[in-house]
Amino acid sequence: MDETLDHRIRSAWTPQAAGAVELAPGALRWLTQRIGSFRPDSGKTPDSAVEIPPSLLPSAARDDLAAVVGAPQVLTGDSERLGRTGGLSYLDLLRRRSAEGLAVPDAVVLPADPEQVQRVLEVCTAHDIGVVPFGGGTSVVGGVTALRGGKPAVVVLDLQRLDRLVSIDPVSHIAVLQAGVRGREAERLLGEHGLTLGHVPQSFERATIGGFAATRSAGQASSGYGRFEDMVTGVRVATPVGEWRLGVAPASAAGPDLRQLAVGSEGALGVLTEVAVRVRPVPTEQRFEAFAIDGWQRGTEAVRVLAQQRLLADVTRLSDVDETAGSLALAGGKAALLRRYLSARGLNRPCLLILGWHGEQGQRRKRALRVLRAAGAVRLGRAPGEAWRRGRFAGPRQRDALLELGVCVETLETAAHWSELGALYERVRAALRAELDRPLVMCHISHAYETGASLYFTVLAARDHTDPLGQWARAKRAACEAITQDGLGTITHHHAVGTDHAPYLRAEIGDVGIRVLAAAKRAVDPSGILNPGKLID
Amino acid sequence: MDETLDHRIRSAWTPQAAGAVELAPGALRWLTQRIGSFRPDSGKTPDSAVEIPPSLLPSAARDDLAAVVGAPQVLTGDSERLGRTGGLSYLDLLRRRSAEGLAVPDAVVLPADPEQVQRVLEVCTAHDIGVVPFGGGTSVVGGVTALRGGKPAVVVLDLQRLDRLVSIDPVSHIAVLQAGVRGREAERLLGEHGLTLGHVPQSFERATIGGFAATRSAGQASSGYGRFEDMVTGVRVATPVGEWRLGVAPASAAGPDLRQLAVGSEGALGVLTEVAVRVRPVPTEQRFEAFAIDGWQRGTEAVRVLAQQRLLADVTRLSDVDETAGSLALAGGKAALLRRYLSARGLNRPCLLILGWHGEQGQRRKRALRVLRAAGAVRLGRAPGEAWRRGRFAGPRQRDALLELGVCVETLETAAHWSELGALYERVRAALRAELDRPLVMCHISHAYETGASLYFTVLAARDHTDPLGQWARAKRAACEAITQDGLGTITHHHAVGTDHAPYLRAEIGDVGIRVLAAAKRAVDPSGILNPGKLID
Repeated sequence: MDETLDHRIRSAWTPQAAGAVELAPGALRWLTQRIGSFRPDSGKTPDSAVEIPPSLLPSAARDDLAAVVGAPQVLTGDSERLGRTGGLSYLDLLRRRSAEGLAVPDAVVLPADPEQVQRVLEVCTAHDIGVVPFGGGTSVVGGVTALRGGKPAVVVLDLQRLDRLVSIDPVSHIAVLQAGVRGREAERLLGEHGLTLGHVPQSFERATIGGFAATRSAGQASSGYGRFEDMVTGVRVATPVGEWRLGVAPASAAGPDLRQLAVGSEGALGVLTEVAVRVRPVPTEQRFEAFAIDGWQRGTEAVRVLAQQRLLADVTRLSDVDETAGSLALAGGKAALLRRYLSARGLNRPCLLILGWHGEQGQRRKRALRVLRAAGAVRLGRAPGEAWRRGRFAGPRQRDALLELGVCVETLETAAHWSELGALYERVRAALRAELDRPLVMCHISHAYETGASLYFTVLAARDHTDPLGQWARAKRAACEAITQDGLGTITHHHAVGTDHAPYLRAEIGDVGIRVLAAAKRAVDPSGILNPGKLID
Repeated sequence: MDETLDHRIRSAWTPQAAGAVELAPGALRWLTQRIGSFRPDSGKTPDSAVEIPPSLLPSAARDDLAAVVGAPQVLTGDSERLGRTGGLSYLDLLRRRSAEGLAVPDAVVLPADPEQVQRVLEVCTAHDIGVVPFGGGTSVVGGVTALRGGKPAVVVLDLQRLDRLVSIDPVSHIAVLQAGVRGREAERLLGEHGLTLGHVPQSFERATIGGFAATRSAGQASSGYGRFEDMVTGVRVATPVGEWRLGVAPASAAGPDLRQLAVGSEGALGVLTEVAVRVRPVPTEQRFEAFAIDGWQRGTEAVRVLAQQRLLADVTRLSDVDETAGSLALAGGKAALLRRYLSARGLNRPCLLILGWHGEQGQRRKRALRVLRAAGAVRLGRAPGEAWRRGRFAGPRQRDALLELGVCVETLETAAHWSELGALYERVRAALRAELDRPLVMCHISHAYETGASLYFTVLAARDHTDPLGQWARAKRAACEAITQDGLGTITHHHAVGTDHAPYLRAEIGDVGIRVLAAAKRAVDPSGILNPGKLID
């Protein structure tokens, strides 16, 4: 593509594009055309107006916790407890707005190190108190909701003080990080040694190493760096029956890989306190670029070929027609200009493909471009790729802005093998459309594998102010049933189970799987204090 | 390297080299110089002279089993039972020679399909009979020994009739294979569709798909295709509490990855009946080539750099100085010629490096060669590489030949992170040398990762005919203690736990790990009929 064209497309892509924090002018008009009119609700209930139930933490338990972490690290004030009432799902945010149905913990405990975490669990076992491990608090599946689960009290175990880079083994390319280190901070700490983890989920700025491991997070660069579980070489886990350490070698045949039981344990099988991760040298260069492909089917087919020929860019992300149009419109890009440009090239249903290359691209990129040319892809150059990169953590903030305006806006995600991906895509869209009135359903693939890919849906509809929680709960249930019917897809590719997916776990792992998980939980958490109601109930 | 030199080295490498079935002339003299004189024992006890205990299978159980699989598929004859008394470890073979300490099962049951396997488990549960799943019978860690584990009887569940390619999903690159399909047969079946699994462990000719999964096998091409666990996309498992199916998507965050609990379960948590695996198109070309590097430390350093720069050949195998010398000498290669050639190039402690490239090598091979040049490696060309490839499944037969001659000969393997690999290497060698009289300890790395590598030791010593079992048992114990001390390495990188490593599992996965495994076992096998005494006791 020549420079002139690149320049024209760059001007089509405003700096806010594809991840804008503020909605662009015209965006609301466009959105109203798509989903009908919507209006704001009465706004978020101010903290001072929220009725916060008194803390039920027995004073003996409080004293014992204070003896472990120090009295100032046991918080029972209203605002501290209110600040850890849940995660960041649309339902969480609605509950916070209306101040109804909030699960306010009885205390917040802030241990300083893994030893203190272990001793906090001992105290909570002795007093039969529920413990909700809390990292960045970014769960969108109810993973950090402070449920009591039949216990007399529940505390949030906030791991923010476990914020250290414990050690680096530069020969083995392994770093040990404490569970409370946030994604961005991990990169900063490792960057001082010329190393990177390469794990950049959308929650990167807030979410923590422990949370990544507990939820099987998948970063945007999963094609290049793997999912978080692929990076974990070892774990240190506090459990009510004692501390657990795993991971002495890069690979082992010493029975089942129990690291893969700790990873994805969602705080229900233990509290991850340290995670050993594979690191790599910081790549010398990065290149983000964009392409347009005509139609979703052609686009997914191209991504499949790239995955199976092992030519995927480190970041590979394909938006469907509606997401391509929506992200441009919502961000105020000159969509019409781009549409004319692509239409003149025969692309009437353009799907945006972002490729991000870390390090030397060499022949891999050249071969990938050959695949894309064969698929009729049109190169859009680096400008839209860089725009996406700059805005790539802004999705949640854009969601918040729409929420304020009275839009029902949420995401959900799944994955399936390639041969079933098309059916899964259609089925989830149909389920959402059947349940919601005139929704805008946008979708992208952001994680591709040789055998299949993820689907990430963003759903917008005018909010039903008479029953906003029920509106989305029904839509989500319809989507989950569509996903699990006939075992078509996984109930979650990278958001974890939490409370929201727990009813569907049996459909995925079977009666035997539930039995095994329940047995593992009883083994490490005999009195059931760990993260009540999450993963398995 | 010019063609003339390649020709000279080719003549140094006889066709039998590095995997000879018959020992080359001069090999015995060389070996005697290294380990002292040895002499054959009285030979293998003929089948007819083995005292085989009568079958303890209750007739009611026999009838019920016959009702499931058909009477001709319940074998209680002496020779059938004797044929499944154990695996292929040195101790197994010694026991078979002396006909002492044999664990003869009470019957051999041959189900035809997964449904029959499930029903066999129901019958065995009802009669409280132990069940030993049996694939190729190539376990070298006691994994298929027919222990009763306190049960009144034990049957071997031979899966050889589960020999079908169930289905192929050419779009998703997934094939479903029954558990009893042998490695070579799997490649033949897939090859008819232009596909390959790419899993070639040394046991390839006999071992089965179910066995690969149950033991976390690592094929010789693990750098290119991954370990077997990386290929498994789904499993179908028969358990006493019901059938279990896992694997609906290429990746999932639906809690712990329970597939990684089924993989490595060693028949103790269920019987794998079908395995869904990722497949790839058969590569258009293969190139095997060899290099010599001066000294083990330099060699491991070069492999580490290749691994961390992600330039490993699909097959990457580095022999230490003793294995390089030993494999040449035992195979009758003109070792002196090669030694002179390398010595003239400054390599006085040559370590052989085999690289096997599958498919287009492109820039990856060129960049790898640059790394090797920087490490002072000398190219030996394709002849020794191809010789290794041809002989690569012959190791066990060479072991058998040495065993006949009265040599104590066995292998053991481990893995560690790069920074600890040198210490692990030295410590295991020291332990073996302290325990055995004048042993020849050879070692290679055949599986390398970004964070570490495996070590595979081959040990030869003159057999102590007064206590041959005790001689090796003591050496093995010393090695295992060296490996697990301070959590330096894994007790097994790809041979599994079986009976032999079971005493050391706690050192690796901790009290909590043992507790979790035991709980999982109770959940799926409440009466403990599955593979008694294996994995966890």
